[in-house]
Amino acid sequence: MGADAPALGRRLAAEAIGCFFLFATVIGSGIMAENLSQGNDAIALLGNTLATGAMLFVLITMLGPISGAHMNPAVSMVSAIRRELPWRETAAYAVVQLAFGILGAWAAHVMFGLPTLQLSVKGRTGLGQWCGEAVATFGLLLTILGTVRHRPQWVPASVALYIVAAYWFTSSTSFANPAITLARSLTNSFAGIAPRDAPAFIIAQLFGALAAAGVALFLFDDRPIEPRR
Amino acid sequence: MGADAPALGRRLAAEAIGCFFLFATVIGSGIMAENLSQGNDAIALLGNTLATGAMLFVLITMLGPISGAHMNPAVSMVSAIRRELPWRETAAYAVVQLAFGILGAWAAHVMFGLPTLQLSVKGRTGLGQWCGEAVATFGLLLTILGTVRHRPQWVPASVALYIVAAYWFTSSTSFANPAITLARSLTNSFAGIAPRDAPAFIIAQLFGALAAAGVALFLFDDRPIEPRR
Amino acid sequence: MGADAPALGRRLAAEAIGCFFLFATVIGSGIMAENLSQGNDAIALLGNTLATGAMLFVLITMLGPISGAHMNPAVSMVSAIRRELPWRETAAYAVVQLAFGILGAWAAHVMFGLPTLQLSVKGRTGLGQWCGEAVATFGLLLTILGTVRHRPQWVPASVALYIVAAYWFTSSTSFANPAITLARSLTNSFAGIAPRDAPAFIIAQLFGALAAAGVALFLFDDRPIEPRR
Amino acid sequence: MGADAPALGRRLAAEAIGCFFLFATVIGSGIMAENLSQGNDAIALLGNTLATGAMLFVLITMLGPISGAHMNPAVSMVSAIRRELPWRETAAYAVVQLAFGILGAWAAHVMFGLPTLQLSVKGRTGLGQWCGEAVATFGLLLTILGTVRHRPQWVPASVALYIVAAYWFTSSTSFANPAITLARSLTNSFAGIAPRDAPAFIIAQLFGALAAAGVALFLFDDRPIEPRR
Repeated sequence: MGADAPALGRRLAAEAIGCFFLFATVIGSGIMAENLSQGNDAIALLGNTLATGAMLFVLITMLGPISGAHMNPAVSMVSAIRRELPWRETAAYAVVQLAFGILGAWAAHVMFGLPTLQLSVKGRTGLGQWCGEAVATFGLLLTILGTVRHRPQWVPASVALYIVAAYWFTSSTSFANPAITLARSLTNSFAGIAPRDAPAFIIAQLFGALAAAGVALFLFDDRPIEPRR
Repeated sequence: MGADAPALGRRLAAEAIGCFFLFATVIGSGIMAENLSQGNDAIALLGNTLATGAMLFVLITMLGPISGAHMNPAVSMVSAIRRELPWRETAAYAVVQLAFGILGAWAAHVMFGLPTLQLSVKGRTGLGQWCGEAVATFGLLLTILGTVRHRPQWVPASVALYIVAAYWFTSSTSFANPAITLARSLTNSFAGIAPRDAPAFIIAQLFGALAAAGVALFLFDDRPIEPRR
Repeated sequence: MGADAPALGRRLAAEAIGCFFLFATVIGSGIMAENLSQGNDAIALLGNTLATGAMLFVLITMLGPISGAHMNPAVSMVSAIRRELPWRETAAYAVVQLAFGILGAWAAHVMFGLPTLQLSVKGRTGLGQWCGEAVATFGLLLTILGTVRHRPQWVPASVALYIVAAYWFTSSTSFANPAITLARSLTNSFAGIAPRDAPAFIIAQLFGALAAAGVALFLFDDRPIEPRR
Repeated sequence: MGADAPALGRRLAAEAIGCFFLFATVIGSGIMAENLSQGNDAIALLGNTLATGAMLFVLITMLGPISGAHMNPAVSMVSAIRRELPWRETAAYAVVQLAFGILGAWAAHVMFGLPTLQLSVKGRTGLGQWCGEAVATFGLLLTILGTVRHRPQWVPASVALYIVAAYWFTSSTSFANPAITLARSLTNSFAGIAPRDAPAFIIAQLFGALAAAGVALFLFDDRPIEPRR
């Protein structure tokens, strides 16, 4: 992000709008899919995947030029490590991502006539799922860092399609985002995760993100960029 | 739209063609999907979503350079508020959108061998669905305004994929368009809406569109463009 | 097509390869879909649609720079009317399209272990389906002519997605191509059409194509291009 | 690949990452799809197709600028024949592709809590399937060679969509890759192939690849490029 980056307020507004729509889509499309699919979870996951991938493309295309369209504290953290975002702003990004993401989850509940406040009881745990979250977040960050560097025009399509694939190749359906993990613990629907299972997911995600930051230095012949201020 | 915009007649012809094909697709693919899906509405919605998103991409790519490819009175209204389209032309746009959209709905009935004139009996009402329509139209207009400004090449893909997502994350499957709401009240098929439920949908849509027009001024550092004549 | 167009032999080879793969995909994916879908035709049509749209994008991207990637006598005919292709070459295009398309159909039969020579017994007839074929071919030609003129880079995506939508919004699942109509009369599988029903489909297709050629002159402010030799 | 190509180590790392994620996706999404689809293999194949196509786009976009993103010994072999890659490096590519691809297969097993070491018992044999593999690999190489030459920006989308189509139009669901054929013999899940059936698949694939290399010389007016060192 160069010296001509938008003011922090506008960037935070972009992250807020992005997380609201992204999380509402992940959770709302899960509810819709479960309501309609007559118990066939593969059909439900197809609908959930299609909606999530489509919305990611839209939001990154629209909001990327403003805030980077992180919508994910793991992405913001790696930006901070690479000195592309000051740590103080990174914290603000993460707070806004979580707060407006939870609002998006609640909006999905309101739209579908469900109780606003919920806690998930869906267990998601075990070594296999933790490996899945680490691998998924590793791949997500590598996708972002590599594509931004060599083919920036294709970042929205690549990130969206990465998540489309990751919904299917990991046993956890790939959360790959600490904020969405917390928000999804607040919905007892298709996309939910029991609150007690969230911390291990988040630890695995951060581990995968850090590994990607390291590999990217070598793989993309990439050096940390100078801080912008 | 600059001084070298196509003549009004050609622009209205583009809106007419666009609404004819868009509305025929929304309604026709709904009929096809319902006919084939053996009562599994998630599969039906997948087909309906795929067809609608695909056709939106095609029509905006083909007709955008001519008329802007609004195909939606809420979009034309926001263009008028932003002084990108004179109010008199906006009214003509809306009339043509509705008239040829209804022709498209009737064409779908003819193609599938159904009675041309129908009224829907499918109830779509309640606070959740109205919130959904407001949120969906808010997001649609924000997508258009933000993407036109920063990444105009990607408008067709973004608008199409926004609707793909919105079919799944709102409880109403996202009409987000006053003209299509009225046209869909004239089909008693998968995509229908009972005429008595249409007005509340339209009010929610206009509310969402106006909110987006306001937010865009701040979010995209956007100022209304000077009138073209 | 300018004076530096590839030699006719290479262009015909491109049409041959294109029709072979396109028709093998339309028919082969229909066989695969029917084999796996346990009688749910909406799921079968999803697979058939996805494969057809994907292959169209691939072939038009790869072969468009060589032959125009018509793969459709109706498209070649409109090119001739617009004086972009000499009539003599148009006839050669059509012969090659049909011959190699039929080879593609037979290849699909071989790959799936079915008898090579077949005739379809699937009836596809009636005013609704004829209207569908006319509307579908009208829209296909309009998409090609409009997108080539204003956004040539997006022709492969637009044509592919047009067919994706048309598979769902017409009652005939949109053949929109005289050569594929004939080839599909030679397969007694998901994509088949009884030979006696093919002529009416082809007449409707040619009618739709001619109408599009006329509308394009006005809509895209388009004048026939001078003959290239 | 020009004189400014990345060092061999970085290129091999890119092939390693690519094959790890590609093969994990092919096999992992097959496991997920089979787990959820209640025995409807068309739905399972839709999920498997979507995930594979999406991941191919992501990996070719991200890794293409580094190593060419072959992820397939047949592609590397054709590059060697065309003198775009020295034979010694081609061998290194193939070893890395197979080794890290198998790691990806094992990672899928770990993520889904299955035994790591498996052998497939799924028979895939017969003239129809061998023809399918030859045709599929022929088309894959033609797609790569033609698109790289005339529309390089679209290679990731074209290759991904080619495989999407090929999963459906061939009776074998199109392996089209000797390394993935071997890796898939090591998983007894949806994507598996019995080890005894792998050699014939690989022979058919190499035959198709060589045929494409020949046809491309004529079709794309293409001459072998000079060796880079």
